[in-house]
Amino acid sequence: MDFIVTLQCKDQPGIVHAMTTVVLACEGNITQNQQFTDHDTNTFVMRTHVETTQTLNQARATISSALAHLNPSLTFRSTDVRKRALIMVTKESHCLRELLYLQELDEMPIDIVGVISNHEVLRPLVESHGLLFTYIDVNTQNKDAAEAQLLSIIDKEHVDFIVLARYMQILSENFCEQLQGRIINIHHSFLPGFKGAKPYHQAHERGVKVIGATAHFVTPHLDEGPIIAQDVAHVTHAATPEDLIAIGRDIERRVLSQAVKYFAEDRIFIVGARTVVF
Amino acid sequence: MDFIVTLQCKDQPGIVHAMTTVVLACEGNITQNQQFTDHDTNTFVMRTHVETTQTLNQARATISSALAHLNPSLTFRSTDVRKRALIMVTKESHCLRELLYLQELDEMPIDIVGVISNHEVLRPLVESHGLLFTYIDVNTQNKDAAEAQLLSIIDKEHVDFIVLARYMQILSENFCEQLQGRIINIHHSFLPGFKGAKPYHQAHERGVKVIGATAHFVTPHLDEGPIIAQDVAHVTHAATPEDLIAIGRDIERRVLSQAVKYFAEDRIFIVGARTVVF
Amino acid sequence: MDFIVTLQCKDQPGIVHAMTTVVLACEGNITQNQQFTDHDTNTFVMRTHVETTQTLNQARATISSALAHLNPSLTFRSTDVRKRALIMVTKESHCLRELLYLQELDEMPIDIVGVISNHEVLRPLVESHGLLFTYIDVNTQNKDAAEAQLLSIIDKEHVDFIVLARYMQILSENFCEQLQGRIINIHHSFLPGFKGAKPYHQAHERGVKVIGATAHFVTPHLDEGPIIAQDVAHVTHAATPEDLIAIGRDIERRVLSQAVKYFAEDRIFIVGARTVVF
Amino acid sequence: MDFIVTLQCKDQPGIVHAMTTVVLACEGNITQNQQFTDHDTNTFVMRTHVETTQTLNQARATISSALAHLNPSLTFRSTDVRKRALIMVTKESHCLRELLYLQELDEMPIDIVGVISNHEVLRPLVESHGLLFTYIDVNTQNKDAAEAQLLSIIDKEHVDFIVLARYMQILSENFCEQLQGRIINIHHSFLPGFKGAKPYHQAHERGVKVIGATAHFVTPHLDEGPIIAQDVAHVTHAATPEDLIAIGRDIERRVLSQAVKYFAEDRIFIVGARTVVF
Repeated sequence: MDFIVTLQCKDQPGIVHAMTTVVLACEGNITQNQQFTDHDTNTFVMRTHVETTQTLNQARATISSALAHLNPSLTFRSTDVRKRALIMVTKESHCLRELLYLQELDEMPIDIVGVISNHEVLRPLVESHGLLFTYIDVNTQNKDAAEAQLLSIIDKEHVDFIVLARYMQILSENFCEQLQGRIINIHHSFLPGFKGAKPYHQAHERGVKVIGATAHFVTPHLDEGPIIAQDVAHVTHAATPEDLIAIGRDIERRVLSQAVKYFAEDRIFIVGARTVVF
Repeated sequence: MDFIVTLQCKDQPGIVHAMTTVVLACEGNITQNQQFTDHDTNTFVMRTHVETTQTLNQARATISSALAHLNPSLTFRSTDVRKRALIMVTKESHCLRELLYLQELDEMPIDIVGVISNHEVLRPLVESHGLLFTYIDVNTQNKDAAEAQLLSIIDKEHVDFIVLARYMQILSENFCEQLQGRIINIHHSFLPGFKGAKPYHQAHERGVKVIGATAHFVTPHLDEGPIIAQDVAHVTHAATPEDLIAIGRDIERRVLSQAVKYFAEDRIFIVGARTVVF
Repeated sequence: MDFIVTLQCKDQPGIVHAMTTVVLACEGNITQNQQFTDHDTNTFVMRTHVETTQTLNQARATISSALAHLNPSLTFRSTDVRKRALIMVTKESHCLRELLYLQELDEMPIDIVGVISNHEVLRPLVESHGLLFTYIDVNTQNKDAAEAQLLSIIDKEHVDFIVLARYMQILSENFCEQLQGRIINIHHSFLPGFKGAKPYHQAHERGVKVIGATAHFVTPHLDEGPIIAQDVAHVTHAATPEDLIAIGRDIERRVLSQAVKYFAEDRIFIVGARTVVF
Repeated sequence: MDFIVTLQCKDQPGIVHAMTTVVLACEGNITQNQQFTDHDTNTFVMRTHVETTQTLNQARATISSALAHLNPSLTFRSTDVRKRALIMVTKESHCLRELLYLQELDEMPIDIVGVISNHEVLRPLVESHGLLFTYIDVNTQNKDAAEAQLLSIIDKEHVDFIVLARYMQILSENFCEQLQGRIINIHHSFLPGFKGAKPYHQAHERGVKVIGATAHFVTPHLDEGPIIAQDVAHVTHAATPEDLIAIGRDIERRVLSQAVKYFAEDRIFIVGARTVVF
């Protein structure tokens, strides 16, 4: 059996030694290992790929016990088990399509539990891929009820994380806090940044030469969660606002998929206000 | 003789026809031509490379007269004549070094009139390249006098444009207005943007995955002039603030040089709040 | 009515003047114009976007007649009329999916006449998008018959161009010659290049740090036609051959789509062994 | 004291454990660690950054002894000690200038022992930077003598590695073998590749859309050594062969500097025909 163990704890001497000792005790062999010490927060993070003849439960018990003195956050996942994702969308399909495309090519190691939307527009697309589409009406009156329904689905379906694939509603602070580090969002990014409506039109008026997208964890403070992935494209004066929007779609779908893949493979650690991505 | 003529005017039918007619009348041949219509501002811009047996003065007179009904802004430059640049620096050398490097390789078609600084640090570097270094003390008391000295140099040396190659003083509104469209600046750029001091440290704290630089014209409103060129580099969590600063230097020098080269070759038009760059 | 006219002819004085004169005579207004002179072959190419109150037939007749002395190749296309594409595939779907994705988002201005394959694998995907799928068996015995069937479809369906979206059969010299400049292919590209089978495995063995893809016109000499678009991705030692193949798929689909879009918008000119792409 | 230890050996269980055990025994703390297993060659490589109160000699002795059973290749370098580089050039200065630029900005952690050339052209540049310039005449008659002189300098000056910064002479097989893994070269790279003279002119004729550069170790088989770093730039039909050459210079200097920096920081391992670069 192959599994990934991730560890995050206060930096201190002997961590790697403790891990390698216990992996040997589990009759395990480390096939990949990545580690990083964040000096700002004095945090140590490590992602270790182990192959062993033991079961995951056995290895988990042994490792958890042996490392308890480090007071670590530990996660264990058999590489056979895929994380369960719930995708949320509104009307735009480009990010959703990319996730479906990659999954059908077997390049996106997640199980998609279903797609939630506050509009019916994307139901046919979702259902044509054999996935469950759930419409949840959201308005100013029923937000609490809508999020309660969402939480019940998350609970019932053992959802590991949520992908906001252009979901245009703001989630409540409370909801974001409950799912801290488990919601990934995508939004456009510009140099310089623009406040307010129609950002691509503003970017056009200012004649920006690059446009970008940022995938980040959602925190109660909108669009300010730890950044997971970013990319940009070069544009020229000849691009209309519509062209910029189309180019933006292309960057958004690629950056979001990259972030989801990193999450699916246990490559992301949240350290302070930022991420370590192996 | 080869020359570049640039034209900017209100969009209207018959502009290209008028230009091609008068170029033929000048016994000229168009070897390159680029044009763009900006619909937001209803502005037409065109850059035309002409070879002719006439002198530049002859061609200029004929063309100016024949196109007068379009009420255009016209510039003419023989490709033998290089624009005259004044470079301003403070203590950092990376942008200056890149301009010198490119010029010594004959890849930067400008004449460098001299280098101005509000510090003495870069005098040896400048003088070792055989260039004139002028120290102009700038403080809150003498800003007007300093800018008057600058304007006198610009006038006496027939300076076409100023390159702020990491010049860390703010120029007065009045100065910027007098030289509108003739001062090029470089500054770092991030997704998201950061206000205040130590931007690279802020970028590090937020864990940005790309850092960038923007070259732009200076307007009385600092860092908000029309953008000429932008680029970014990808960075990871492993980069320290010092690494980010070093990577930033590398992007800054390349983006500024690109912008200066565009300006030197008459490739930039200011249209509203943005640029057209051919 | 808006239309695109492209012109290619021997370079000579007065071409732009002649075009602008006749466009005015057609009561037309040039809204975009791009031109280039290739000095190696002494060829002039120009792409002109015109709006006019005349019909396309009227404008075509007037322009063709007025420019006849230049002995040009001319094409005319109303911007309302999309080029008709025939897509050919074998078993891999990534390039096909990208074309379908872009078309469904209205970002790929082509009409897809249908999809041809020498395998049945992709029939369900094609038909689920409401497109015609035609299986044409190809083997060493029946190649002539297969290409005859293909030519009959091209003729009957008024196909403007063929997109080889990972079609793994070699087309005959005769077929390629008949459709010169109308078949676009995609293939992987490496630094250095590799001969023979399993190129991604060879690339892995040599530890290349970038892998790329090239979209090009097909000529009777396989993989050596004029290049339309190229791009690369950075890779590290950690990428397995399978990872490289997945990254390669991503580059291939983007580069091929870019090339198809350029073709659909009349942006490509073949000049000698190379292309001009506006 | 901080030091970097690199280890390369046959993959086997317990390597990381053995290293972490002995580092603890040295009163050391691991501040960075990177490892990779190459399955093709069954090779394990690891780069470990250690801080300790012991001297380098003490730590080296303890670690070498404790890991002897793994039969590893080990290197040790105090981070205070810079590698000693000998730079070889012919007439072109762009790569040399970049190395000097980075060193003067304190971004290139090497000691430059001197510059060797088979021409006198770059003497003034080298000497103006306060470096030793040695002219070694090379011709078909005296190649052996020239290389003997080179080897004597390498020996006398304790040269760690050679940077061929556009050195246009072929080194003998014998010389390359003696310095295997210690000579870094840069050369241009294209998709597709071109044989023979004037590659940029060939690239222009074929209308390539990207041009690149590859930094690699020199082996007795020219231009085929393990690749260290590669990058490309996008170009268009408008670029002349001279433009391509200028763009090529820009890529070459950046890619070579990147490779030299990796080497200076002990980040490169040669594994079979390829490199692992941390």
